[in-house]
Amino acid sequence: MTESVDRQTAVARLRSADDILILCHKNPDGDTTGSAGALYQALKSLGKNVAVLCSDPIPKTYDYMDFTWFDGSFEPAFVVAVDVASIQLFGERNNVQEYVARANLCIDHHASNSGYAFETLLDPGAAATCELLLDVIQEMGVTITPAIANCLYTGVATDTGCFRFTNTTARTHQAAARLIEAGADIATLNERLFECRSHARIQIERLALESLEFFFEERCAMICLTWDQITSTGVAGSELEDLTSLPRSIEGVEVGLTLRQQKDGSFKISVRTGGTVDACRIARRLGGGGHTRAAGCEISGNLDNAKMAILDEVRKELGEPAQA
Amino acid sequence: MTESVDRQTAVARLRSADDILILCHKNPDGDTTGSAGALYQALKSLGKNVAVLCSDPIPKTYDYMDFTWFDGSFEPAFVVAVDVASIQLFGERNNVQEYVARANLCIDHHASNSGYAFETLLDPGAAATCELLLDVIQEMGVTITPAIANCLYTGVATDTGCFRFTNTTARTHQAAARLIEAGADIATLNERLFECRSHARIQIERLALESLEFFFEERCAMICLTWDQITSTGVAGSELEDLTSLPRSIEGVEVGLTLRQQKDGSFKISVRTGGTVDACRIARRLGGGGHTRAAGCEISGNLDNAKMAILDEVRKELGEPAQA
Repeated sequence: MTESVDRQTAVARLRSADDILILCHKNPDGDTTGSAGALYQALKSLGKNVAVLCSDPIPKTYDYMDFTWFDGSFEPAFVVAVDVASIQLFGERNNVQEYVARANLCIDHHASNSGYAFETLLDPGAAATCELLLDVIQEMGVTITPAIANCLYTGVATDTGCFRFTNTTARTHQAAARLIEAGADIATLNERLFECRSHARIQIERLALESLEFFFEERCAMICLTWDQITSTGVAGSELEDLTSLPRSIEGVEVGLTLRQQKDGSFKISVRTGGTVDACRIARRLGGGGHTRAAGCEISGNLDNAKMAILDEVRKELGEPAQA
Repeated sequence: MTESVDRQTAVARLRSADDILILCHKNPDGDTTGSAGALYQALKSLGKNVAVLCSDPIPKTYDYMDFTWFDGSFEPAFVVAVDVASIQLFGERNNVQEYVARANLCIDHHASNSGYAFETLLDPGAAATCELLLDVIQEMGVTITPAIANCLYTGVATDTGCFRFTNTTARTHQAAARLIEAGADIATLNERLFECRSHARIQIERLALESLEFFFEERCAMICLTWDQITSTGVAGSELEDLTSLPRSIEGVEVGLTLRQQKDGSFKISVRTGGTVDACRIARRLGGGGHTRAAGCEISGNLDNAKMAILDEVRKELGEPAQA
């Protein structure tokens, strides 16, 4: 089991370390990438030898972050993982697991952190790892340069949906203010991170809207995407995931359903609810699970069966009469 | 011409006033409504008689703001306009113009403010009138209650597209942090303000995506909505306005065009550009105008003519060869 450490201890470890390897989680997002980029720059400015490694390539979106990829040219003496909640989340490629096994320090904000590292600086109250890393880096005695600020802002902004999600706190906004004062170019970053949709995303959005149906006096909205549609657009998993919020976002809709066909023909169903409707109860009756407002399940069989099964559970939850 | 006043003076005027009428701009948005709601609550807490008036009804979205509508039951001794840049923007209904003519004070953040009030507290560096009103209200000696914080957060968040637009500054985030600490319920507000789309909006989005076309090696994207489509969905002007950012938001698109047919059959064209492309130069050649990244013009005649005319100007601006 890991040792929980406070910020002072984590700062001391980083300051005394050298030949440092920073590890990100697989399918890297803005927070793990921004954390790695910021910590890399900070350690570099202290004259240390440092590099970054991840199971997957860093998405092009984040190519403004400047760090050296680990090429095996030095033997890491200190391994630090950023924003990675469990060993499985490191992935398997690029030999990452070899270094995970001897992770000296983990800096994270996921309450679910499994404690795989020798020491862990965990702050579940932070909206993003980058939010807590801002304090860590300043306490290391490093000036927050515009480049570091850009990295940290990326993590804070992406993990909060640009300050829209419920994890956003006063401290998140204070961090954003400090990063802007330090020179974060938020005009460029916000456009890049939040105003840009891929062609695939636009195509799948169009198909999703074409498939939109309403049920139970428009209290329930459903979109449905077939395996062919998903593969022909080439849409990324994260973009598809984003779409699941669409049906629920429509005025008056209490239950939003997204049906995504899998390769084997079965349907993965995302249930999003508002008001007092329990998404988890709907999903659980079909063998799935999740949270009160976001849950999911899988149903095999053809589209009509899947629709009928999920709508029947939604009907019960909404207290609507059985339909003819 | 108006007298420019500093915050201290504006605070003194408000503290010594009574029988106060607060005026909003027509087609009220989150900032003018939030400003009115917050100032109403603040003045009320100082024991004053106060009411709010606007040429148009306040949208249902903002019905959590608690203030009294002016019903003529008292004779206003002090008139204060919030977030209104010019006399025309007050509108004509509900007798507002009668009170505009004797506006004692205007509190605003629009650099274009025409100076119609006797005294004006103008801060063009503020992202929203609510951002500067936070300091005004605190300096009035009023505690920022959760209700006041909700009103002010509404203005700050809506005028910045939830901290996404380029008017967002460190001070904007600091204001948000203070409002959260004062009890603003941002989880509820963000869902209400940013996660809810009307049925009309969803329908028009679908039609817009169906009409999407690309030109000049996908450097230009165009959506087109006919008068029939616009009227049949019953979409609000502001929702339609939002859509104009869609074509430009697609990966690789430098020029985004939105063609909206008017009642007389002519087309209103919105031009949005990225990178180095000058939207204003495109629009100006067709008799329109605007800014470098957002401009507009109108073209009469049928859809094919309108398309051809605008695409020809886009082609020149992009330096693309003439098409066969």
